[in-house]
Amino acid sequence: MGESKPRVGVIGATGYSGMELIRLLLLHPNVQLTYLAGSRARSESFGAMFLHLAHLEGVSVEAFDVEACKQACDLAFVALPSGESGRVAAALWSAGLRVIDLSGDLRLPADVYQAWYGHTPVETSAQAAAVYGLTEFARDEIASAQLVANPGCYATAAVLALKPLQDHPILQAGIPVIVDAKSGVTGAGRSAKTHLQFAELTDDFYPYKVGKHQHVPEIEQALGAEVPIVLTTQLLPVSRGIFASVYITLTTEVDREAIYQRYLETYANEPFVHVLPYGEVPHIKAVQGTNFCHIGLVLDEQKKVLQVFSVIDNLQKGAAGQALQNANLMLRRNETDGLNAAALWM
Amino acid sequence: MGESKPRVGVIGATGYSGMELIRLLLLHPNVQLTYLAGSRARSESFGAMFLHLAHLEGVSVEAFDVEACKQACDLAFVALPSGESGRVAAALWSAGLRVIDLSGDLRLPADVYQAWYGHTPVETSAQAAAVYGLTEFARDEIASAQLVANPGCYATAAVLALKPLQDHPILQAGIPVIVDAKSGVTGAGRSAKTHLQFAELTDDFYPYKVGKHQHVPEIEQALGAEVPIVLTTQLLPVSRGIFASVYITLTTEVDREAIYQRYLETYANEPFVHVLPYGEVPHIKAVQGTNFCHIGLVLDEQKKVLQVFSVIDNLQKGAAGQALQNANLMLRRNETDGLNAAALWM
Amino acid sequence: MGESKPRVGVIGATGYSGMELIRLLLLHPNVQLTYLAGSRARSESFGAMFLHLAHLEGVSVEAFDVEACKQACDLAFVALPSGESGRVAAALWSAGLRVIDLSGDLRLPADVYQAWYGHTPVETSAQAAAVYGLTEFARDEIASAQLVANPGCYATAAVLALKPLQDHPILQAGIPVIVDAKSGVTGAGRSAKTHLQFAELTDDFYPYKVGKHQHVPEIEQALGAEVPIVLTTQLLPVSRGIFASVYITLTTEVDREAIYQRYLETYANEPFVHVLPYGEVPHIKAVQGTNFCHIGLVLDEQKKVLQVFSVIDNLQKGAAGQALQNANLMLRRNETDGLNAAALWM
Amino acid sequence: MGESKPRVGVIGATGYSGMELIRLLLLHPNVQLTYLAGSRARSESFGAMFLHLAHLEGVSVEAFDVEACKQACDLAFVALPSGESGRVAAALWSAGLRVIDLSGDLRLPADVYQAWYGHTPVETSAQAAAVYGLTEFARDEIASAQLVANPGCYATAAVLALKPLQDHPILQAGIPVIVDAKSGVTGAGRSAKTHLQFAELTDDFYPYKVGKHQHVPEIEQALGAEVPIVLTTQLLPVSRGIFASVYITLTTEVDREAIYQRYLETYANEPFVHVLPYGEVPHIKAVQGTNFCHIGLVLDEQKKVLQVFSVIDNLQKGAAGQALQNANLMLRRNETDGLNAAALWM
Repeated sequence: MGESKPRVGVIGATGYSGMELIRLLLLHPNVQLTYLAGSRARSESFGAMFLHLAHLEGVSVEAFDVEACKQACDLAFVALPSGESGRVAAALWSAGLRVIDLSGDLRLPADVYQAWYGHTPVETSAQAAAVYGLTEFARDEIASAQLVANPGCYATAAVLALKPLQDHPILQAGIPVIVDAKSGVTGAGRSAKTHLQFAELTDDFYPYKVGKHQHVPEIEQALGAEVPIVLTTQLLPVSRGIFASVYITLTTEVDREAIYQRYLETYANEPFVHVLPYGEVPHIKAVQGTNFCHIGLVLDEQKKVLQVFSVIDNLQKGAAGQALQNANLMLRRNETDGLNAAALWM
Repeated sequence: MGESKPRVGVIGATGYSGMELIRLLLLHPNVQLTYLAGSRARSESFGAMFLHLAHLEGVSVEAFDVEACKQACDLAFVALPSGESGRVAAALWSAGLRVIDLSGDLRLPADVYQAWYGHTPVETSAQAAAVYGLTEFARDEIASAQLVANPGCYATAAVLALKPLQDHPILQAGIPVIVDAKSGVTGAGRSAKTHLQFAELTDDFYPYKVGKHQHVPEIEQALGAEVPIVLTTQLLPVSRGIFASVYITLTTEVDREAIYQRYLETYANEPFVHVLPYGEVPHIKAVQGTNFCHIGLVLDEQKKVLQVFSVIDNLQKGAAGQALQNANLMLRRNETDGLNAAALWM
Repeated sequence: MGESKPRVGVIGATGYSGMELIRLLLLHPNVQLTYLAGSRARSESFGAMFLHLAHLEGVSVEAFDVEACKQACDLAFVALPSGESGRVAAALWSAGLRVIDLSGDLRLPADVYQAWYGHTPVETSAQAAAVYGLTEFARDEIASAQLVANPGCYATAAVLALKPLQDHPILQAGIPVIVDAKSGVTGAGRSAKTHLQFAELTDDFYPYKVGKHQHVPEIEQALGAEVPIVLTTQLLPVSRGIFASVYITLTTEVDREAIYQRYLETYANEPFVHVLPYGEVPHIKAVQGTNFCHIGLVLDEQKKVLQVFSVIDNLQKGAAGQALQNANLMLRRNETDGLNAAALWM
Repeated sequence: MGESKPRVGVIGATGYSGMELIRLLLLHPNVQLTYLAGSRARSESFGAMFLHLAHLEGVSVEAFDVEACKQACDLAFVALPSGESGRVAAALWSAGLRVIDLSGDLRLPADVYQAWYGHTPVETSAQAAAVYGLTEFARDEIASAQLVANPGCYATAAVLALKPLQDHPILQAGIPVIVDAKSGVTGAGRSAKTHLQFAELTDDFYPYKVGKHQHVPEIEQALGAEVPIVLTTQLLPVSRGIFASVYITLTTEVDREAIYQRYLETYANEPFVHVLPYGEVPHIKAVQGTNFCHIGLVLDEQKKVLQVFSVIDNLQKGAAGQALQNANLMLRRNETDGLNAAALWM
């Protein structure tokens, strides 16, 4: 880890988002990982706990401490469970550290947060100060931010699918936009639960939190308009990947080519958002282990329904990858540093 | 195989639907399997080809012949590829045998068939004579039918989900009903294709035939009304199971309890359709290897969207299981004979 | 549940072996399930907890009580965690009930038990009284037993693979027999553990308890001779199935055909053990969800190593299925009653 | 693709090894990919065929031509089917190009090749000239080689597990070494076969080519001694990864610590071979998508059997990764260039 590179830390090292961040940071060419903490210290080195990193330099996990973190880092990622994460992020931010919080705690106004998360909100000043970190649409604010609320996985997939149409009349008719979303199981976190065991989940598929997922208000807020969203979240028997099938019911004729051009133009220079040729559909395999979002469009002209398909890796563009993309902006690195992996496919 | 039991045959023995039929028939208490045929004869016994049946009495696969089939059977199941299947079924029916065709060849009028399947239709007289075999809604016609067109897998899942609302105003507003459907890969058949190989499909999820799936007109025909259907078919990395997420956009207030009661009443005495408690969601695991359909309902009262979730095993209620249920009616067996399996779950 | 059928109960209803027993018993034609208990009572009905049985008659789970169990049952299956299971089985047996214990608690002498399990042994009188229930080799003792110690899953696969050679010189040379065994994850039980979560286990394969698995002494005891066993147990990313690859290093010439004939003869009339044609290999798929054991043999004549491949479903022939097979003997049912399922294959 | 970097080509671009090579080469910092060929030209760009590379610069696949290849490249990788691959490699080598052949065609003497592969051997001069490219044990010859026969996947896993003991007495007793090996299905190649379809392979596990796998003579040749190898190859329901469980039966006492030290010393400075702490076992997940080999040792002192567990990714250290490692040596790049990925784990 070179001496002059910016120093970063990860709090929440043993959850899935934290593990993925660490994997990315250990291979990052232009930042150094200098601090790892969790709710409690671990006696084993990280490489001993996680054999896929066994060959990388040993790092140990400390019990979190604000002051130690501040001394060790220029920027901290906080990836703790909802409720705890926002409080830790706010404390570090108050202490003067730049912070990216991967939880949902700082993304929503207090009243909306409480209604959907069921927790008492974190200090409102932190929530108010936090920049919503959907990179493609807030580069400048993120680059200068002290505190970033990193977007949710479903919200990232849905908002990237809909943002090019944000001010288009077809989103303004008041007919609910259907987001039928499917996620790999890492989205449910690493803590052990019977229903997430291999023997229970393999060969299965089912919805959860129907009508109640906390990413609904996040999507609606990000689209900045009166677009009612129906989000159905469903568990896929795969480890990583979100597939969002978005259905927009049209009330008027639309020009298919004009719609498609909006997507091409919106994402023309984006390093991580790829619009497929019209009519082609994305695959979650094509983005697993990467920070990419692939988007496909199909218009059913007879039935008058526009379908937008959007895929991301929930742990990358949906969490750790986007957090690192944001950190690269904040630390004046190349935006794509450490994020150039191509998916394995097979 | 007892002497006085009705004799049945399977043509198309080595495809997935045919294999599943044979597995069910070899364990059936009240019919005997007396004829197995494919496009060509096989020198190996069925048990040698398919180790899961290695312990059952050996049966061999003949090259198909109308006369031999007629001599050997009281009823024939035809489960050949589209195009070929309807022709064989029509030939057997013309020769006086009772027939259940598992393909899509006899389900639609000639013009609709040609538009969606791209084949020249089978003889129209057979198509006109065939009874559409969605058991729950055509028991009497099926019981006396000479020729049954067994429903498609996606169509079965979607129609069972929507049938209780067929004459309800919420289906008559002209707003497309969205059927976001996910299927296990046995639905794609048994012939070898690179994109269906394990290494390609594991960990993946993606749509196919968007806007073009041939079950669209079948669903619209079965609902017998002006209900526009948008059907998106998607491949799940599991072997069996269809999960249909159906979205009905409401234009008026509806009484949640009244809607739910329609489902309970429609399926109150059905042995294979199970309506879950309101708000609970079905799992494909709960029906794999069985002839069941599980249905769950959730009404989003704020967004005014009714969600119906429907699951079946595509090879059972979506193919071989429903065919056997129909054969039981035609042969005056108990409707549930040979279909009492409970899913493994884990 | 007919009135004159023998009444059976399951203690340990919500573990995987218990769940599988209940699934089998609810469909059993000739016994009735009259008692379900766990460590604590459950307010939900079994069908509400486990959707794959949602359509079957509701049964509820009581907190275990010796007297209530004795009143309700003619025979009890005990499928609790090791340590607890043997104590409950011994208590019921002392109270006069016939019992089948699915744990390892009653399979071994006290000293061996303590060395391999690390628990204080259960009352020695129960252990001494228990009949080791490998059905094929102890039918008469099982039929008249008051207390049966049902074999372990790995032990069943290994012993069925080796028993035909028990008194053959090739097992008497003192060279260790290698049993490289692979198991589906239901073998690890249902309680939630991070390393058994889908996201951790999918795409993985690894050994565990190398040289320390408690089925080693069970196998050595069952072979009743000085046959040293090296057992390596490994986790497969599948739900069910044990595949045992057994390697016997030969010190003399052997007659391949004579060896093969021993297998054919040993299992000639067995309803659940199927010896494949010489040179063919078994598949775990062929026995999943069934009580079958498939065995294949290959002799490497140049290298002088005999390979025996043996597969079972760990929850059926390796647990609940064999327990039911034994119960059928004890209750004078047909040995195969309730065990006639054929595997799905696809 | 920078101008002064060595230029490389891949022949066999659409098989799994070729695809993996291309994925690695497109991200390689110090070589440029300048030629892609297959048995026939493809009209689509590579990125359109393979969505996981959709964002990388388009490259097209030509029909193979010796002269075109020679003009375009400094070094060629040949990854065609056995039989064809060696002929193409020999032709390019004869034409003066440096070549790495990923097939088995050039690894064995003509008589052994014909006995195990069943093909007529490729020109013997090419076979005689080819350096066997197990990198860790032939660095100098590889660096200066004109023609490299890249090792087989099973052979790499087995030989890396046994090489530290090559001249130790425990391998010289004449007792067969058992290599119970399990492989992900990409090892079976990309051409479509029914038994490799997802619906057939998921949930299954089984051996194939028992006693007949062509990597047996390759392993025996690489160990350069009279070590009889029994290799059992088995299919895992995962995409990538080989797990080799190696059993060495001991005839004398051995010093466990001395054995372990041999492994530590042999691989002390190896960038891609990692010896785990004594008694720990490797996981295939820890090396998927990487060029690593992880090795674990357990000695059963009572039974006198040494177990060595070795894991690699069959498409990386077992094929494309090791080929690139060798190319880096041949082209005077850093040996680890383009090979620094860490596995995803979850």
